[in-house]
Amino acid sequence: MRLEPDVILANRLADAAGEVIRPYFRQLTSVEAKPDRSPVTAADTAAEEVMRRILKQDRPADGVIGEELGFERLGAGRIWVLDPIDGTRAFIAGRPIFGTLIALVVDGQPVLGVIDQPISGERWIGQIGSWPSTTLNGRRVQVRPCRALAEAHLATTSPMLFSRSGHAAFARIARASRDTILGGDCHNYAMLASGQLDLVMEEGLKVHDWAALVPVVAGAGGVMTDWRGQPLRLGAMGAVLAAGDARVHAEALERI
Amino acid sequence: MRLEPDVILANRLADAAGEVIRPYFRQLTSVEAKPDRSPVTAADTAAEEVMRRILKQDRPADGVIGEELGFERLGAGRIWVLDPIDGTRAFIAGRPIFGTLIALVVDGQPVLGVIDQPISGERWIGQIGSWPSTTLNGRRVQVRPCRALAEAHLATTSPMLFSRSGHAAFARIARASRDTILGGDCHNYAMLASGQLDLVMEEGLKVHDWAALVPVVAGAGGVMTDWRGQPLRLGAMGAVLAAGDARVHAEALERI
Repeated sequence: MRLEPDVILANRLADAAGEVIRPYFRQLTSVEAKPDRSPVTAADTAAEEVMRRILKQDRPADGVIGEELGFERLGAGRIWVLDPIDGTRAFIAGRPIFGTLIALVVDGQPVLGVIDQPISGERWIGQIGSWPSTTLNGRRVQVRPCRALAEAHLATTSPMLFSRSGHAAFARIARASRDTILGGDCHNYAMLASGQLDLVMEEGLKVHDWAALVPVVAGAGGVMTDWRGQPLRLGAMGAVLAAGDARVHAEALERI
Repeated sequence: MRLEPDVILANRLADAAGEVIRPYFRQLTSVEAKPDRSPVTAADTAAEEVMRRILKQDRPADGVIGEELGFERLGAGRIWVLDPIDGTRAFIAGRPIFGTLIALVVDGQPVLGVIDQPISGERWIGQIGSWPSTTLNGRRVQVRPCRALAEAHLATTSPMLFSRSGHAAFARIARASRDTILGGDCHNYAMLASGQLDLVMEEGLKVHDWAALVPVVAGAGGVMTDWRGQPLRLGAMGAVLAAGDARVHAEALERI
């Protein structure tokens, strides 16, 4: 699959979103409440709008799924999945580790993913089926080896986001791992791809939360599946397990 | 109290620590294990050494308490309290939100505090008894108003770090607040001082974890005490409550 034109477009989308988002960072005076109490900002909506405008012009036949503004043309073979600000809590708390997530999903499979951090100016791009492919600002990155779960550094955004049974599985894996860090959202997956974390486990993610992460992790040599070890395809449940080393992935899966 | 020479020295300490720390960031291949499993790195020790060397030369009569290398001259009226890398987990996970903490404690009271982020190049400095005094890279910052706990954005590094009864108190306050974000370490207090968070609650902190935060928060117009509402002085227990708005602080205290 030749994705060069899509990579160029994805970069344009991330550039445009970053331009919109940056002026809002650490300038929040009020926060709109969603029914689920998760915070959402004007930046979120405005950044999705600007990306959708570019897609409408350059890829009018492609589908779009966005966190804020819903979906269009879900029947298309190619679908762009957008999360303008993944980690809205981090954004609101002034942490430069939220991310703009952009994925291209072809026939249900995420094939291209971007994690962009518009404050630090760091952008990870990865492709499925092309390894090593993941880059951070143009430079190759890769996962690190980790022989066993007992040596693994684990990350999850919040234990409160798990279901009851999911939390029990997470707690088993956290106990068996070397150390656990909380918070982080998409940044954890970027750091896993960069060889600084070994395992990320989350539940209840929406497609816009995970689609971009899969190519970034896989293109860096990692493994990212659902909790049954199945590939994450459009329609997957959003219980995800990403590891830099397949041995850690396998050990964690057994404990779920 | 004239602290200008101490502010200049604190800046030198932070500069020196940052020089040492930066080359280690996102370059970790192995992590030394402490008995309590919290990660500590070569950067941590090396950065404390360089700061102690400067203090020994420039303030030979002052006491020093450091996270990594213990204490000296605790009987001195002036004591420097150093945490070269607060948020070692964040550091290890490649997040640019850990911090170098430097405090000057005079007669048991923290009077000068520095929170330095050597990757983003952001440095908060605050003084007790001088308001507004807190600056971020030389520019004044201040807390934001928040009328009630129900409107407050709360942060804590990890619910797992609370005692059982402490966790119950935290859970009550989290339920009563608008939203909660995890992770963050010293960065949460810096963001509170910058008006981007309303409340930070933690337990089990050591003096090197909290001493520098008090002047940064107070100098930005916030309130930071222990869980009984008492001032944090050398010897305090390390259960801390920081708020941008005194009304939120009072409401949270009631619920503890």
